[in-house]
Amino acid sequence: MPRRFIPLALILTLTLSADAQTKPRARDLGVPFDGTPGPNNAITDVKGVEVGHTTLMSGSGKLVVGKGPVRTGVTAIHPRGKASNDAVFAAWFTLNGNGEMTGTTWVEDSGFLNGPVMITNTHSVGVVRDAVIAWKVKHGGPDMEGYFWSLPVVAETWDGYLNDINGFHVRPEDAFHALDVARSGPVEEGNVGGGTGMICNEFKGGIGTSSRVLDAKEGGYTVGVLVQCNYGARDQLRIAGINVGREIPEHSVFKEDVGSIIVVVATDAPLIPTQLKRIARKVSLGLGRDGSYSGDGSGDIFIAFSTANPGAVGAKGIHQLTMLPNDSLNPIFLATVQATEEAVVNAMIAAETMKGINDHEVIALPHDGLREVLKRYNRLAK
Amino acid sequence: MPRRFIPLALILTLTLSADAQTKPRARDLGVPFDGTPGPNNAITDVKGVEVGHTTLMSGSGKLVVGKGPVRTGVTAIHPRGKASNDAVFAAWFTLNGNGEMTGTTWVEDSGFLNGPVMITNTHSVGVVRDAVIAWKVKHGGPDMEGYFWSLPVVAETWDGYLNDINGFHVRPEDAFHALDVARSGPVEEGNVGGGTGMICNEFKGGIGTSSRVLDAKEGGYTVGVLVQCNYGARDQLRIAGINVGREIPEHSVFKEDVGSIIVVVATDAPLIPTQLKRIARKVSLGLGRDGSYSGDGSGDIFIAFSTANPGAVGAKGIHQLTMLPNDSLNPIFLATVQATEEAVVNAMIAAETMKGINDHEVIALPHDGLREVLKRYNRLAK
Amino acid sequence: MPRRFIPLALILTLTLSADAQTKPRARDLGVPFDGTPGPNNAITDVKGVEVGHTTLMSGSGKLVVGKGPVRTGVTAIHPRGKASNDAVFAAWFTLNGNGEMTGTTWVEDSGFLNGPVMITNTHSVGVVRDAVIAWKVKHGGPDMEGYFWSLPVVAETWDGYLNDINGFHVRPEDAFHALDVARSGPVEEGNVGGGTGMICNEFKGGIGTSSRVLDAKEGGYTVGVLVQCNYGARDQLRIAGINVGREIPEHSVFKEDVGSIIVVVATDAPLIPTQLKRIARKVSLGLGRDGSYSGDGSGDIFIAFSTANPGAVGAKGIHQLTMLPNDSLNPIFLATVQATEEAVVNAMIAAETMKGINDHEVIALPHDGLREVLKRYNRLAK
Amino acid sequence: MPRRFIPLALILTLTLSADAQTKPRARDLGVPFDGTPGPNNAITDVKGVEVGHTTLMSGSGKLVVGKGPVRTGVTAIHPRGKASNDAVFAAWFTLNGNGEMTGTTWVEDSGFLNGPVMITNTHSVGVVRDAVIAWKVKHGGPDMEGYFWSLPVVAETWDGYLNDINGFHVRPEDAFHALDVARSGPVEEGNVGGGTGMICNEFKGGIGTSSRVLDAKEGGYTVGVLVQCNYGARDQLRIAGINVGREIPEHSVFKEDVGSIIVVVATDAPLIPTQLKRIARKVSLGLGRDGSYSGDGSGDIFIAFSTANPGAVGAKGIHQLTMLPNDSLNPIFLATVQATEEAVVNAMIAAETMKGINDHEVIALPHDGLREVLKRYNRLAK
Repeated sequence: MPRRFIPLALILTLTLSADAQTKPRARDLGVPFDGTPGPNNAITDVKGVEVGHTTLMSGSGKLVVGKGPVRTGVTAIHPRGKASNDAVFAAWFTLNGNGEMTGTTWVEDSGFLNGPVMITNTHSVGVVRDAVIAWKVKHGGPDMEGYFWSLPVVAETWDGYLNDINGFHVRPEDAFHALDVARSGPVEEGNVGGGTGMICNEFKGGIGTSSRVLDAKEGGYTVGVLVQCNYGARDQLRIAGINVGREIPEHSVFKEDVGSIIVVVATDAPLIPTQLKRIARKVSLGLGRDGSYSGDGSGDIFIAFSTANPGAVGAKGIHQLTMLPNDSLNPIFLATVQATEEAVVNAMIAAETMKGINDHEVIALPHDGLREVLKRYNRLAK
Repeated sequence: MPRRFIPLALILTLTLSADAQTKPRARDLGVPFDGTPGPNNAITDVKGVEVGHTTLMSGSGKLVVGKGPVRTGVTAIHPRGKASNDAVFAAWFTLNGNGEMTGTTWVEDSGFLNGPVMITNTHSVGVVRDAVIAWKVKHGGPDMEGYFWSLPVVAETWDGYLNDINGFHVRPEDAFHALDVARSGPVEEGNVGGGTGMICNEFKGGIGTSSRVLDAKEGGYTVGVLVQCNYGARDQLRIAGINVGREIPEHSVFKEDVGSIIVVVATDAPLIPTQLKRIARKVSLGLGRDGSYSGDGSGDIFIAFSTANPGAVGAKGIHQLTMLPNDSLNPIFLATVQATEEAVVNAMIAAETMKGINDHEVIALPHDGLREVLKRYNRLAK
Repeated sequence: MPRRFIPLALILTLTLSADAQTKPRARDLGVPFDGTPGPNNAITDVKGVEVGHTTLMSGSGKLVVGKGPVRTGVTAIHPRGKASNDAVFAAWFTLNGNGEMTGTTWVEDSGFLNGPVMITNTHSVGVVRDAVIAWKVKHGGPDMEGYFWSLPVVAETWDGYLNDINGFHVRPEDAFHALDVARSGPVEEGNVGGGTGMICNEFKGGIGTSSRVLDAKEGGYTVGVLVQCNYGARDQLRIAGINVGREIPEHSVFKEDVGSIIVVVATDAPLIPTQLKRIARKVSLGLGRDGSYSGDGSGDIFIAFSTANPGAVGAKGIHQLTMLPNDSLNPIFLATVQATEEAVVNAMIAAETMKGINDHEVIALPHDGLREVLKRYNRLAK
Repeated sequence: MPRRFIPLALILTLTLSADAQTKPRARDLGVPFDGTPGPNNAITDVKGVEVGHTTLMSGSGKLVVGKGPVRTGVTAIHPRGKASNDAVFAAWFTLNGNGEMTGTTWVEDSGFLNGPVMITNTHSVGVVRDAVIAWKVKHGGPDMEGYFWSLPVVAETWDGYLNDINGFHVRPEDAFHALDVARSGPVEEGNVGGGTGMICNEFKGGIGTSSRVLDAKEGGYTVGVLVQCNYGARDQLRIAGINVGREIPEHSVFKEDVGSIIVVVATDAPLIPTQLKRIARKVSLGLGRDGSYSGDGSGDIFIAFSTANPGAVGAKGIHQLTMLPNDSLNPIFLATVQATEEAVVNAMIAAETMKGINDHEVIALPHDGLREVLKRYNRLAK
């Protein structure tokens, strides 16, 4: 069974992850972006945030449902680290709803995200969801009376062009693994975790991340974004404002925007849920800069959380909170737009050409080609 | 012009208001309700809340558009009193949307209500809205650069069965007056203010109010509700769970639920906007207890605010807030449901039979008849 | 393993289901309700709707996580019958969000429900969700290119007071079974399917259903409601407007409203999604009549669909639709409120006293006691 | 009184409007855009749509509140022409809520827009709203019983940097005028109507419009967009993907994004309200392309309507509708994004440098400067 080979792939993946971000990223190639990123230019620049991937990659050639080829995985984001049982203020937004993010009904009504955000493929949302409960039961567990319930947040995009999605290859252990290996520091991008088999603007897509650090006079807060990008039509792709997709039309895959994008925004700014809702909505503007028109088949779903105000959900009695006034939000809005714009490009830069089921092939965005196009439009930063 | 007689009516109204609540209220008649009301059993039991009415009543007989008869008015609710420029956390909800509440787009996105809540008739929302801005400019005014903007909250129900609504009799001065005479203490109910010409379950309706005080161990908070009730089909009306409307079918007016209800919920519990949204939504359950099915023609629109956390909108820098945890909200939810249920009945009990345009007459809910029905069902409290 | 005994329970269940509704229902006991129900007084009175249950009941005594006792299950509702691949117009609403209904992001944005509505326990949403995909792949499958994706609607309430919920006893086959045995005609109520281990107003709850048929002059449409009811505080319970719960205080379980209720509304009236959203919102008013205040711990989530307009999702080109005008919706709103009110009572009437984990016992609403209370208040219909 | 001079200004405006679009527009200057516009590249390319402006411009120099200077107005958009009483399917969306659009509660719940969309300044929403009712009463009027109500849609942006906004210069007659002079054909852009005193990306803004016509194989539908643009920070402005604002930093006005934008999208594609909601949401992506980050002070509020399905609101009995399937919406989504992107640029191209209160001056986007920048980046189309 192909999946038995996966642990090997995982080991490989984890070994590579040490130098994950030694691969060139968009800025390294001279793509110009505004704003100042954090040390890792990653969602993990927000203190406490940990990211883990399980990458399932095995088999090749003709699709045999249940046998493979397998090109999928799971990505876990812990807002306060895997050891914390503490919730964060959160909110979500849907730009186009052809997708799933479980747990959002309670995020919306409570204003809290309790537990990790998981991202996987469309047909594995369920197994990952129940696995998060099992993992939480194991790590935290029921109260003294034995009561416990959980409404995990699990999102997805569809990888069935490359992956045997109807083979349901993701297992509970794969979710446990992503939860367990999550860590701070550099975040692996491209063909990893939930993003393994994803396609973005008809180039190979997957996981991408970016961050911004505000000026001290704006509060010095960090905003981090992680995307699992699987959306977009080639001829709409804009990078640094230039219609790059139209100038690199080779090996396009689809005729229209059939994919999806999940965006997770983290910040340490003290925002209440109403404000995080606004942040989540602004993600759209970052995608607009990249040329998205958010097609009918897209599940463009975003969640934003703040790691400020620890303990706001748990204690009895009145909580003491801090909150940034609404009229101080502009730099955070702008940082969200900028980091979203960049995270998508980072995903495409990191992703590598992949062959999947039935020898379907999706090419990576060619780095040299990109530089050539940007240069032609006087937009190459270096 | 009939309107010139109005000041007289106003004086009368204001004189009466001193003993406003010496009129029997629902509890005085033996209608049973759960929970403990505050000293005035009114929204003004929430400290800081002030209510003011302008009642416009003049003319009789045949409708001459622009001449009358006039049966309308304006009600103003200041969350922190008329002298305050400080906003309150707020949220709103629509059970049925055939109505208007201006200003809600910013309430929704900012989480704040800045200024009063005004209630008037459907065709006078505009004049009242702009008048609030003028009033605020006069009382607070633009900043030093001369900049200022305002997005007032003004709601309405339709009084055109009794009132010359297309005569546009409400003037800016009427809004100013309601804002200026607002005060704490007992609240006049029935045929007053915005509720002057309203109809509720095909009895005379209008303004009603009620409150609940939580036990000390639940925080001791107060929840106050004020309604402008103009909704409902007679045969659906339930009081204390009994289908009172069906047992007092005389002089019904319409065939179906064509009206609306505006509900304002105030509390001093420290709630953030996400939580106030939940409160606003629970108002529906109080209306359910009264038998509403919220017909297509209804503008059933609710707004909830918290007077806790003064200064949360205005200051620069990080705000310090207090917040009740979500799992302490149950008593507040229940108080909201109970006070809504009672405020509607209070409105009908206080309202008096009225003749309006074209001699349209709407009878008051007969107090004795109500007692008889409740007695028949063993539901009379005294 | 206890689950091995379940098939036996299932056989029993299925055998019983033939005379499912020979058990007395609320009307049979003399509880008065308004409106005219359909032939089965069930959601299946809406033509095409099929309901299936898998009931998992085994073991007794002390909880051993993973071993039992098991008191749970799955309920499946096919809007157009199990053989149909055709979507229905749909919309959803959340009265209180402490729960899960997957698939709603796409229901909201597309206006369509594609596939069944499933209801199970909180910790089994995932397994049921992925199982629906597997079932659809098997029965319909990918398109010619091998592409297919699905965003199943699966809802839940929490049965961990009686059931070994952290034992994850629901398996994919249990979802398949509920999907496969679904049928039109009478619907089994009480301790069955997803409702097996549920508690309602601190009496035994579970599955309940009811329907209304409109007058011919109102279009003659049918509105059917099915609930999985697990919500409510005993002292708030109202039946026929009477505080029944307060008069039967014995053997109450909790101190506050900790549960949830899932409500599914079906109609054959030709409604577009905007209108179904309104229907879903009106469900709240039915729960209000039953005394709910929708506590913080409640996942009160409702979905409404219309079986009119077959083929509206699938075909290429412009679709021809029918739509009822908004101003004809009142009878449907009222029917929704009435059928919701009754379905909850039917669930409690049908449910039987149950012992679950650690010998936790939840008593059934005593039929005689209920009649006595209603009689005392002159509310007994017969 | 300054306003007495306005009729003259109006005459001037109306005379000019004959050759309104003989002024160069963005495409005429060589700004490259995707897609095929309709004959007028205006919202009026959607058959039936009529646009009228009232432009109030008088006085100069120091602000005397109530006296001027006046730089404001009203814009009216009739979805089916001024003579029609027929509603259109509609939906709205808020990207950032610091603004007002009245009437949206009923648009949201009913799915219909009944009457015109009006746009004016922030402090004149009320007068325009009530004036629309008066205008409708005059032109259509109450039913035979004398009943009538109306919930007009009126939106705003803030022009207080140039206009004596607290002077409340807009009168009912100004709204009547805009409603009455509305017509199909070319639409005047820039410093006209509601857009008279507006500022966009710290250049002079105002009214802009654009349209797209789909290929016959995509249905041949038209999508038209009209904006009243008053938003944006200079250094974020992107035109054709290039950071034009940063290269023309002269005479900037504010430090951050303090303004707003109202966007009206019209189409003749047969869309139901759920689908129009999606259209309204996609407007964000067009603003994203123009560089917006939608600051806290912005009222970025969008409404979309479809002129298909005439008579859908009015008739009794079941309506026959047509609907485009969701999976045919992509070209309409893309057209919405493109036309929004272009309408904003058209507004800035058409607007002319203006001096307002206290000699505040806002410069027009310099046409030559824009061409130079685009040329430098190889983005000039001609």
